[in-house]
Amino acid sequence: MNHPWIADRTAAFDSSGIRKVFDLAAKMTDPINLSIGQPDFDVPEPVKEAAITAIREGKNGYALTQGMPVLRNKLQAMIDAEFGHSDRTNFVCSGTSGGLVLSMLALVNPGDEVIIFDPYFVMYESLVKLVGGVPVVINTYPDFRIDLEKVRATITPKTKLILLNSPANPTGVVATAAEVEGLAKLTAEKNIALISDEIYRTFTYGEFVSPAKFNDQTIVIDGFSKSYGMTGWRVGYVHGPSAIIDTMIKLQQYTFVCAPQPAQWASAAALDVDMSEHVATYAHKRDMMLDGISDLYEVSRPEGAFYIFPKAPWGTGSEFVAKAIENSLLIIPGKIFSKQDTHFRISYAAQDETLKRGIDMLRKIAKG
Amino acid sequence: MNHPWIADRTAAFDSSGIRKVFDLAAKMTDPINLSIGQPDFDVPEPVKEAAITAIREGKNGYALTQGMPVLRNKLQAMIDAEFGHSDRTNFVCSGTSGGLVLSMLALVNPGDEVIIFDPYFVMYESLVKLVGGVPVVINTYPDFRIDLEKVRATITPKTKLILLNSPANPTGVVATAAEVEGLAKLTAEKNIALISDEIYRTFTYGEFVSPAKFNDQTIVIDGFSKSYGMTGWRVGYVHGPSAIIDTMIKLQQYTFVCAPQPAQWASAAALDVDMSEHVATYAHKRDMMLDGISDLYEVSRPEGAFYIFPKAPWGTGSEFVAKAIENSLLIIPGKIFSKQDTHFRISYAAQDETLKRGIDMLRKIAKG
Repeated sequence: MNHPWIADRTAAFDSSGIRKVFDLAAKMTDPINLSIGQPDFDVPEPVKEAAITAIREGKNGYALTQGMPVLRNKLQAMIDAEFGHSDRTNFVCSGTSGGLVLSMLALVNPGDEVIIFDPYFVMYESLVKLVGGVPVVINTYPDFRIDLEKVRATITPKTKLILLNSPANPTGVVATAAEVEGLAKLTAEKNIALISDEIYRTFTYGEFVSPAKFNDQTIVIDGFSKSYGMTGWRVGYVHGPSAIIDTMIKLQQYTFVCAPQPAQWASAAALDVDMSEHVATYAHKRDMMLDGISDLYEVSRPEGAFYIFPKAPWGTGSEFVAKAIENSLLIIPGKIFSKQDTHFRISYAAQDETLKRGIDMLRKIAKG
Repeated sequence: MNHPWIADRTAAFDSSGIRKVFDLAAKMTDPINLSIGQPDFDVPEPVKEAAITAIREGKNGYALTQGMPVLRNKLQAMIDAEFGHSDRTNFVCSGTSGGLVLSMLALVNPGDEVIIFDPYFVMYESLVKLVGGVPVVINTYPDFRIDLEKVRATITPKTKLILLNSPANPTGVVATAAEVEGLAKLTAEKNIALISDEIYRTFTYGEFVSPAKFNDQTIVIDGFSKSYGMTGWRVGYVHGPSAIIDTMIKLQQYTFVCAPQPAQWASAAALDVDMSEHVATYAHKRDMMLDGISDLYEVSRPEGAFYIFPKAPWGTGSEFVAKAIENSLLIIPGKIFSKQDTHFRISYAAQDETLKRGIDMLRKIAKG
């Protein structure tokens, strides 16, 4: 990608390693694909029908910048019922990533430090750099828990915000109520922003607690993509203090414009669909995968999302993943999500048959 | 919007004046609404059906970052047939605005100058500032033509790119072949980038010429929103030199992720739909509006888009628009698109009955 006109900031971005694995996958016949970060189920029928009705009824023009009332008001009622904050509003964004981009633009000045927990979602570090911020990484290996004393020691006068992702991609770890409460209160004490990326919230197999419960200034990013199998429909939402939400809406006018209108009508319908069977199925897949490999791999039992993040049993994470890919098993090297190259990500959002083939292959290559 | 955490860059953005007019409109009963920047026709039936089929068939997951092959390959064939450049590729973005944002991120370093023609599309100046660039404005009043000598005199060693929008929002003016060729060759001579925003290209009532015809490094942004009445579906595309397109695809991974998948299948179908009747209807509406007011208003005859941009017959543009709005006529003050407050924008993308009511009111208030 050499061209004299290309801006310097683009050097901070690498073509995502995940995409490289996808490109490989496209060339393979019948790979064991455990690399995909989206549900293996389709959008529920009533949600599809709501989108189709919207399209047929001509709801195809620009949506309101802040989101269509049919969706936004329903979200607001849910948010009010859960948190009861006097100054918490929401807006509809173009997927969770749209919410992340707008959060960074709205909050981070050049030079501001942003604390993220390693391993982290692949976008975090790059997005911080995109707006001129400085990512400051806290290592959470080997158990991926939040050490509050480490966080406190990492905060400086330049710290602007902390990015929390629970349930987490790539580890599947869910922060405990104590961790969440501690982090919420610490950020309040230090007057720094806390962004809670709750995109995997639906896929929690134990207890989920949002830091917004303990800190009314928390900015929460959530969405419909993962919960309802609609990653290609680009609908997310953000809730937080109204002045920050209003600023993000203002920025949305000049960037994303709006989330797709028919998908917003569908998302409003999605809020009435019970996804608990899918969640139970995914909890079962998690158990199946863990039971299948945990005698041979060092792996913590994750309580959410649809990932596990084992340690490579030999070599670096990348070396191990290369071996897996040679054997038609597609997994993601941990260094995509981390400063260290020791682990790998398995997505168990796949058919049981594929999981079984994956387990067999992982057992076969565990010894090198 | 006061909150201690809000980043400095957000001050460069105003809640768009267009949105203020929309908010007013929502409160009025039966206004004469000539403020809307989108077609008044719905998405063509075969395009709707293609979206519905995609949804029913489960094409609801992430699209490829660069766009689904069904659409991207068809666009590439069109682009190759038109330009025949050896190094011109394309990708699918989230509406034209998505293409604009990614262009700015890919090309503009902090401090780089970006030349825009005044009046300009409302996003341009803000987007340049968003990435730390310096907007440099060339006044094109009263005829909205491009004066190449003025452009040449405005170029400095810091000039990184020129943004051209033809047919133009808000004026409806289409650059002549001579203007386009001159600008294309001047940017090639000076080794600066030329971005051609061709979103209104379908709505050209005379000849349309793209600068890419004369300069193979031109970056063209186009989309489906205006041409097919699908502004709420968020599908656009960009074509240009492959290294720049690859850089924008890389940035898309970390920001927009992808354009909505079902809408991409629908956009592929849209390319086979003949919109010439709609275009003829809009040419007629343009004539109707011009014939209705040009004895009382100073206005140039626009050859494209669905706007006219008359001079306010008394007072500032804002004062005149305030009077119009008092009389339930919704139009947009020119200062939203300009450094000067002398004109106003009429969108004639409306039913003939509404246009007639608009003409009557404009005649009534022309004398103050």
